[in-house]
Amino acid sequence: MTPGSALVSGFVSGFVRELLRGLAQIMLQPAPLVGALFFAGFLLNSSLLSLLALLGCGVATVMARICGCDVAERQAGLYGFNGALVGLTLGYFYQASILIWVLVILGGMASTLVMREMLRRHLRPLTFPFILVSWLIMSLLWLGGWSESTVGIEVNPDQIRVLDGLLRAFGQVMFQENLVTGAVFLGAIILTNRVAGFFALLGAGLSVAVVSIASLTDLGEIFPVEAVNLGLFGYNAVLCGIVFAGWSLKNLGAALLAIVLSILFVRLFQLVALPALTFPFVLASWLVFWLQAKSGTYKPRRGKN
Amino acid sequence: MTPGSALVSGFVSGFVRELLRGLAQIMLQPAPLVGALFFAGFLLNSSLLSLLALLGCGVATVMARICGCDVAERQAGLYGFNGALVGLTLGYFYQASILIWVLVILGGMASTLVMREMLRRHLRPLTFPFILVSWLIMSLLWLGGWSESTVGIEVNPDQIRVLDGLLRAFGQVMFQENLVTGAVFLGAIILTNRVAGFFALLGAGLSVAVVSIASLTDLGEIFPVEAVNLGLFGYNAVLCGIVFAGWSLKNLGAALLAIVLSILFVRLFQLVALPALTFPFVLASWLVFWLQAKSGTYKPRRGKN
Amino acid sequence: MTPGSALVSGFVSGFVRELLRGLAQIMLQPAPLVGALFFAGFLLNSSLLSLLALLGCGVATVMARICGCDVAERQAGLYGFNGALVGLTLGYFYQASILIWVLVILGGMASTLVMREMLRRHLRPLTFPFILVSWLIMSLLWLGGWSESTVGIEVNPDQIRVLDGLLRAFGQVMFQENLVTGAVFLGAIILTNRVAGFFALLGAGLSVAVVSIASLTDLGEIFPVEAVNLGLFGYNAVLCGIVFAGWSLKNLGAALLAIVLSILFVRLFQLVALPALTFPFVLASWLVFWLQAKSGTYKPRRGKN
Repeated sequence: MTPGSALVSGFVSGFVRELLRGLAQIMLQPAPLVGALFFAGFLLNSSLLSLLALLGCGVATVMARICGCDVAERQAGLYGFNGALVGLTLGYFYQASILIWVLVILGGMASTLVMREMLRRHLRPLTFPFILVSWLIMSLLWLGGWSESTVGIEVNPDQIRVLDGLLRAFGQVMFQENLVTGAVFLGAIILTNRVAGFFALLGAGLSVAVVSIASLTDLGEIFPVEAVNLGLFGYNAVLCGIVFAGWSLKNLGAALLAIVLSILFVRLFQLVALPALTFPFVLASWLVFWLQAKSGTYKPRRGKN
Repeated sequence: MTPGSALVSGFVSGFVRELLRGLAQIMLQPAPLVGALFFAGFLLNSSLLSLLALLGCGVATVMARICGCDVAERQAGLYGFNGALVGLTLGYFYQASILIWVLVILGGMASTLVMREMLRRHLRPLTFPFILVSWLIMSLLWLGGWSESTVGIEVNPDQIRVLDGLLRAFGQVMFQENLVTGAVFLGAIILTNRVAGFFALLGAGLSVAVVSIASLTDLGEIFPVEAVNLGLFGYNAVLCGIVFAGWSLKNLGAALLAIVLSILFVRLFQLVALPALTFPFVLASWLVFWLQAKSGTYKPRRGKN
Repeated sequence: MTPGSALVSGFVSGFVRELLRGLAQIMLQPAPLVGALFFAGFLLNSSLLSLLALLGCGVATVMARICGCDVAERQAGLYGFNGALVGLTLGYFYQASILIWVLVILGGMASTLVMREMLRRHLRPLTFPFILVSWLIMSLLWLGGWSESTVGIEVNPDQIRVLDGLLRAFGQVMFQENLVTGAVFLGAIILTNRVAGFFALLGAGLSVAVVSIASLTDLGEIFPVEAVNLGLFGYNAVLCGIVFAGWSLKNLGAALLAIVLSILFVRLFQLVALPALTFPFVLASWLVFWLQAKSGTYKPRRGKN
């Protein structure tokens, strides 16, 4: 191997690792293996979504290189996951077209700029750059007369199905409704990060249990069974569980509070008929961070998204 | 300002602070701000109850001054809250009359004497002085032919209403059925003491959840929906949560045990048709204290009620 | 008293203590008092089962003496409980006959041999020696044309009965369906080991709560109410709670995971119509041990079964 080709192959393998970490960071994990498993999960569900996720992740990561963002943060995948989510969300909500591909590229680049500003100001971006960019693009498309065209899958609207609800809670974090894809995501988390896996499962389980118990009360009319079976109450809960995962009662208390809040926020977004994306998770987490900061238990974490 | 008027104003502001701390100690909080918010909550619901609470609190505090009780304990509000509760309970259960006002004054004084004896013997009084005095007064009134005349509010007897149950669980700690008043109490706790607020909310939430789940079993016939919506299963659970609040699993375990026990005790009192007041909370807490003492994890706490 | 009789009486009292510890170890407790209470519980339910338990425990303990097993382990009752369980299970599933008495003796001896091999290899036997031996004997009896003849008790198949489910969860650990016997077992644990008692109660309570909540979902068709009222979902959960009992969130997390897994395993065994005995508990515990070992939180415990 010539020195030149070694350089190229080193560059390529470095970039691939950045991409995989970018995918993994969708669930706040930094391991390339997790990203590879997430990609395998995408492929199981839809090759179109896989490509759009990869494109968004790649564009956002390259943009971070161009803008001279912090190298360690970029290599940890912190600049890729928002772009990947922009790709997934546009691919999920709209029919594929040249315009969508262009918007994924532009959206991925924009998400990096938002991310950089938030990290500079020492805010905790979570998935907010993705949410902001996606809402902007979706508003523009709506103004331009493009309508959303999600067909979505048919689910049982009469009875809560526990396994469906649990697995789709994992899948819906990345807009995947396929059950096997959800199982792959769950497996990837448990395999690499036991405590995060336990708390993510707690979030998914609680979302199903809380909505089940709510059906015994006046809240029952509020939470539609269909949304439970689609994992729609669970995917924000899964992320809340992961963000606050840790073996202390403060972690558990924070996670429980964020999970319950996120379920309520999801329902509010459904009632006003706006796409919530992962904003219920972001809002619930920010609220709990703020409460923690006020009571002096907040500890800034190392370079996490 | 003359030295004399400064003395008077200092005396007055000191006494007002004692009174507010006395109200706050109903939920085991020592902050005057909490007491002020509680009083605002009373006013929202009933001006009569507000006055009776203030009267009972004032009489009990003055009595503590006369009897030469420990100054630090008195200033922390430990002698006021039992008197305030006597005022609230008599105002809630009976129609206002001169006799009731006189009994609030006598009851407030008596509660201070009981409190002093219990503190001297290093017992944990919690709200027991109030309970003892109130039961005595109610027995005497019953012997004298005075009947209770609570009209109470009408609630949905067919379906559990979660928000009503949660907010009234906070309100009923001080015999307030008004939903906004309950919300003010909840806000006051969360604002000043995060961990106590979290555990109080846990108590209220569990009381609703446990009764909901119980409705799926043979216990369903036992727990009337009406009582849940009135917050009657929750107000003792709220107090149990606050007493055992703390960021350790032992605290959580103790709180859970006390909460579940208090719900059972509430039901027992309902079945024998006696006014439980906050005795289910006192009994459950004493039981858990005793278990803790036996297993060596009991740590006496600083001057708390 | 002559030196000889003192020697005999010392030997006897030592052996009795070993037997009682053997019974206590069925629930992982080393206190002779617990074993005595367990035996009292057996007597309340059935004198035949009491005798068979005592016989199995005695034979297994004597066998340990003959084989020269570790003295400290034998004196802690670690060799008795598997024999006792063999006696209980054969007495529960088959009509009494000479053959059964002989099989209890042989089974008790065999259980000691299995236990010794497992302890030597530093495996965690839990109740596996009993399970292995019992399955072998039951297979042989089945091949020989002997059928199980449990009459069992009649329980309400229409509605979950909480108190029945809780108490039988404790009773069924040792194949006792009598409610009072279950209450005695529960009392014995709480009296001597607060944290184990709390976690055991948590296991029993969760098994009832989980199955109740499941009845609101598609899992409802899967979990028969009859089995809940018989304590069949709870007795493995009780053991899981005891094994992972401890005042840390890791303990709680491990216990919750094991409890939920054990409930699922119980159901799987019911579906394939094989006698689960306490294997769901063993399997769930081993799985959680393995997860703990992988994530580096596993700490080998002192000479426990």
